[in-house]
Amino acid sequence: CYKVQIAHYEALGVDGLSCYRDTLAYVRSKGAVVIGDVKRGDIASTGEMYAKAHFSGDFEADLITVNPYIGSDVFAAFVPYLQTGNKGLFILIKTSNPSAGDVQDLFVTNRPVFMHIGEFVHNWGKDYRGECGFSLIGGVVGATHRQQLAEVRSAFATLFLLVPGYGAQGGAGKDVASAFVDGNGAVVNASRSILAAHMSKPDGAKRYPEYAREAVVGMREDIRQWME
Amino acid sequence: CYKVQIAHYEALGVDGLSCYRDTLAYVRSKGAVVIGDVKRGDIASTGEMYAKAHFSGDFEADLITVNPYIGSDVFAAFVPYLQTGNKGLFILIKTSNPSAGDVQDLFVTNRPVFMHIGEFVHNWGKDYRGECGFSLIGGVVGATHRQQLAEVRSAFATLFLLVPGYGAQGGAGKDVASAFVDGNGAVVNASRSILAAHMSKPDGAKRYPEYAREAVVGMREDIRQWME
Repeated sequence: CYKVQIAHYEALGVDGLSCYRDTLAYVRSKGAVVIGDVKRGDIASTGEMYAKAHFSGDFEADLITVNPYIGSDVFAAFVPYLQTGNKGLFILIKTSNPSAGDVQDLFVTNRPVFMHIGEFVHNWGKDYRGECGFSLIGGVVGATHRQQLAEVRSAFATLFLLVPGYGAQGGAGKDVASAFVDGNGAVVNASRSILAAHMSKPDGAKRYPEYAREAVVGMREDIRQWME
Repeated sequence: CYKVQIAHYEALGVDGLSCYRDTLAYVRSKGAVVIGDVKRGDIASTGEMYAKAHFSGDFEADLITVNPYIGSDVFAAFVPYLQTGNKGLFILIKTSNPSAGDVQDLFVTNRPVFMHIGEFVHNWGKDYRGECGFSLIGGVVGATHRQQLAEVRSAFATLFLLVPGYGAQGGAGKDVASAFVDGNGAVVNASRSILAAHMSKPDGAKRYPEYAREAVVGMREDIRQWME
């Protein structure tokens, strides 16, 4: 499973987005699941255009990340694609960055904003659950917020989670273990710690694939030791 | 001043984004200000890529719309461009869509989430004020929420506002008049009511520019009658 961050391609303009198209096509040609990390989200008529952009055509991904600030309209635009059973969303609940709490931790009645978002996502996803009980509408909770990750998992048992922030951002195996339910229900993402694993090695330039693989295997073992 | 919605181009893939590039270049070649309605927003390192993407290169706009769910990191990524004095942001405060309140109206202590966002935007913008007292970091408040628009304007006098939702979404002159301070401090956006003005006319296909111009003049008069 690969998460591809569109911003790094978008920064290079039309040429960059041609590469984004080619990257996604390559990953999908290998039979791997690809998450387009696009964090789009807009009002109904515009949201439909983003759905078309990232679930069909040049930039087709299997799942994409979505920003919930707009409210339920943001999810509604994707419904026709979710109904096929082959596409899914990860809606931002609690992001991995330092200032995530500015908005997400604002306290509303008896719980913070991010837990309200968690409940929205959980409710929006009720009609889209698969065989394992998890929904095609999942949520993003950063590995850098261990307690909040456990809180979200505990409150919303059927929510499939994308957990970014492992590695370079500081998240570790012990932080993300609570995201899983019997070894299922979550995908943990590391970017820089894998992509740049070779850069600290003298022979890194030559052995890039080996060091990337080594980092992935190390990450898997690190997470496994905290699960049981 | 033109607001160009990238989603409608993005839906057409790489070819669509080539047209987006050409549209922006054309508007800017005429000396007009262009707002890229991209609603991007991501954590620091990724946010920097979105800043590069939309304030330089193929997709360079003068101002862009930004989603605040990520917190202050979302604004920090754009600082180097704001410091030039030639670029600006419109951060989503209260959007124009029907479900805007799902998140934005959640009540935190003594006021809703959108008023907290208004204060963030107001504070982030303090160091970027120009001659007229308004900041390069402005906010988005939909014309469809008349009372909340007046509330934001009243609380944050130096906030420059982008007010979408006029026309097809239901906003009218009386709804948006409160956004202005002595005739300044806001830009009201209409899209479909201008772009599609010709479609209800029998000779619309032939006289598209005239009907678009007529809609714009009518909109200006409609707003003016409610000011001072």
